[in-house]
Amino acid sequence: MSAYEDQARQAKEASVALRRASPTQKSAAIKAMGARLRTRIGDVIEANKADLDQAKKDGLSEAKLDRLKLDEKRVEEVVKGLDAVAAQPDPVGKVVDERKGPSGIKVQRVRVPIGVILMIFESRPNVTAEAAAICLRSSNAVLLKGGHEADRTNRMIATCLQGAAAQEGLPANAVQMVEGGHEAVDGLLKLDRYIDLVIPRGGEGLIRSVAEQTRIPVIKHFKGNCHIYVDKDADPIMARTLVLNAKCQRPATCNAAEKLLIHVDAAMSMLPQIAERLLKAGVQLRGDDGSRKVVPQIKPATEADWSEEYLDLVMAVKIVRDLDDAIRHINFYGSAHTDAIVTRNEVAARKFLNEVDSSSVMWNCSTRLADGGQYGLGAEIGISTDRIHARGPMGAEELTCAKWVVTGEGQLRQ
Amino acid sequence: MSAYEDQARQAKEASVALRRASPTQKSAAIKAMGARLRTRIGDVIEANKADLDQAKKDGLSEAKLDRLKLDEKRVEEVVKGLDAVAAQPDPVGKVVDERKGPSGIKVQRVRVPIGVILMIFESRPNVTAEAAAICLRSSNAVLLKGGHEADRTNRMIATCLQGAAAQEGLPANAVQMVEGGHEAVDGLLKLDRYIDLVIPRGGEGLIRSVAEQTRIPVIKHFKGNCHIYVDKDADPIMARTLVLNAKCQRPATCNAAEKLLIHVDAAMSMLPQIAERLLKAGVQLRGDDGSRKVVPQIKPATEADWSEEYLDLVMAVKIVRDLDDAIRHINFYGSAHTDAIVTRNEVAARKFLNEVDSSSVMWNCSTRLADGGQYGLGAEIGISTDRIHARGPMGAEELTCAKWVVTGEGQLRQ
Repeated sequence: MSAYEDQARQAKEASVALRRASPTQKSAAIKAMGARLRTRIGDVIEANKADLDQAKKDGLSEAKLDRLKLDEKRVEEVVKGLDAVAAQPDPVGKVVDERKGPSGIKVQRVRVPIGVILMIFESRPNVTAEAAAICLRSSNAVLLKGGHEADRTNRMIATCLQGAAAQEGLPANAVQMVEGGHEAVDGLLKLDRYIDLVIPRGGEGLIRSVAEQTRIPVIKHFKGNCHIYVDKDADPIMARTLVLNAKCQRPATCNAAEKLLIHVDAAMSMLPQIAERLLKAGVQLRGDDGSRKVVPQIKPATEADWSEEYLDLVMAVKIVRDLDDAIRHINFYGSAHTDAIVTRNEVAARKFLNEVDSSSVMWNCSTRLADGGQYGLGAEIGISTDRIHARGPMGAEELTCAKWVVTGEGQLRQ
Repeated sequence: MSAYEDQARQAKEASVALRRASPTQKSAAIKAMGARLRTRIGDVIEANKADLDQAKKDGLSEAKLDRLKLDEKRVEEVVKGLDAVAAQPDPVGKVVDERKGPSGIKVQRVRVPIGVILMIFESRPNVTAEAAAICLRSSNAVLLKGGHEADRTNRMIATCLQGAAAQEGLPANAVQMVEGGHEAVDGLLKLDRYIDLVIPRGGEGLIRSVAEQTRIPVIKHFKGNCHIYVDKDADPIMARTLVLNAKCQRPATCNAAEKLLIHVDAAMSMLPQIAERLLKAGVQLRGDDGSRKVVPQIKPATEADWSEEYLDLVMAVKIVRDLDDAIRHINFYGSAHTDAIVTRNEVAARKFLNEVDSSSVMWNCSTRLADGGQYGLGAEIGISTDRIHARGPMGAEELTCAKWVVTGEGQLRQ
């Protein structure tokens, strides 16, 4: 048996033991994970330094080095995230529905863990501990396959996590780092007898390749081509502030706004000031003919712009005829990730919230708020762009499913 | 563009229109579907006769002919199912969670349709109308691909369904029968830009082949290797009655019990009478050495028996040491479909319900009750054996997913 197959089998065994773990035991283990990371912060940062040195030798870009880097502040943020997850109500065992069947049986739906989760992610080692905590909160065993650039860091973090689990009487194999390269990933994706769900986080290529290779259910985390629509009834100052924040606060994230739609009746009065702020913030603007007539600094947009996720200080602008036009544009070109309307008109807002078919729809706030922490989930394991199981930010509850618990007094099928 | 591609595109368009349909409009359309089936019952049965004649010429087995056959009683049952779905509360728009985020934004989770569902099923034409009704109730457009043996029947049923949808102002393309053979199915499974979910219902081979071919999410409906466990604290009469019903009431269904586990302390006192009833009902019994010592008519079971779904009057019997032994056996050999305990001991029952990892777990009732109708769902589109999105019987609510609706007063990401 290969090493990774052995790990998957052990994860399955651990998932059975986790089904009996109590909420307080799991909370204690998650808190202990944070405490161990804090105690061994020196070792974690040292391991991370070694990864960073190697990555520099390998010529990784500054952006990638930054994603790989852990410092005291970043570790402390992770610990805070773990504490939040430890303090959360336990999703497992929650009764989500209860009814009587026609024969008199009592039918309940109760949240239960999924089983074994394989998480494949690229180099950001903060993900390691947060993913482990969310999986443990929901009583799932997890196999973590991080990028090889972060191997030393991840190994050290995993030592802390496993030690904490064992200290609280939970199986250490509930959290495992998978070693090995592509052949390990390819092999794991075949193990549908052990693994119940795959969550790939990273570039579109990684996600597509995972989804194509495996028969195991995959929850995909694709791109965010997010829109902010400024309605004719928008508050002009709020519109300006929200567009600026949605675009510029952290442009490389999936919930940053990539497109600005503006109602034709608001274009003359609001677009100039919005564009001025964006240009001053260093944003390159591309737009349709209408918007270019209003703001000459806007460069022409091509058809491809409307579908693109820039992840950069670039924004495309389009004047729409009305609310329906905005909704149609978003549903056609968008990625169904996060889209917002700015308006004082509740009827328009309700229509937008109902008819835009995205995992997060927003009224008068920044698209950058589409995030597990901002939604009150404590932490997130990712933002699903799928249309089944869970849409948008996924916390511990989204790593459970409901089973049917039926009690009777001898009822038969007639 | 091929015919099936055109149909898929039209389904996508219909799904957009369905998002605006009101609950009363959908209820009216589902009721009208039933009414049209009733009015045109003669045409439906005539079309079915033509299918049956052809199937006889093609040499289909009696069992398959019976599955294909529609008579007045069967059509009337379908109509009753549609009426039940029409009377159900609408799942779309239901707020399932509501909270405040740390920035003060109001965060709601609201049930929304999935979009376009491709349902691939074998010859049973009762499925056609029920699946359409459940999809419409949940505002999903559906592409129905039935077995070619039922083509004439399905076409006639679809005419009724589409006419009813159009009569109530809904797009007729919300419900479409897909024509064509394997090449149509293979082609549809590639159309992930139009189709959001595939539900294959039929043999294991069909389901595996669909899951392997497509990148679209699939909810699988695999086999049921269901157990009934008779505890030492079972009521002997209830145990006898439940085992008999679970095995014999309709042995070819996925929720019929295939295995009988019995506590060692109950074997001498209860197994002889249970076995006597089963043998009298024509059930062939296979068992472990222990059970064969108690009941000599039991034939020896092989290792393969513990995993097999017989779908027939066959049952394997095993004496277990205790409750833990029963739970371990079920979780190891079972198919995580439906498993039941018979006991008067609530502590034992709770342990069984918690630790058996099946989509339906039951206490003191027949496994044959694992069914959407029996659970109060009105009708079902199938019984999921997956571990994400939905487990067990799936009704209209299980064809929705929750999106996030966020309202603010200008909140930014800091």
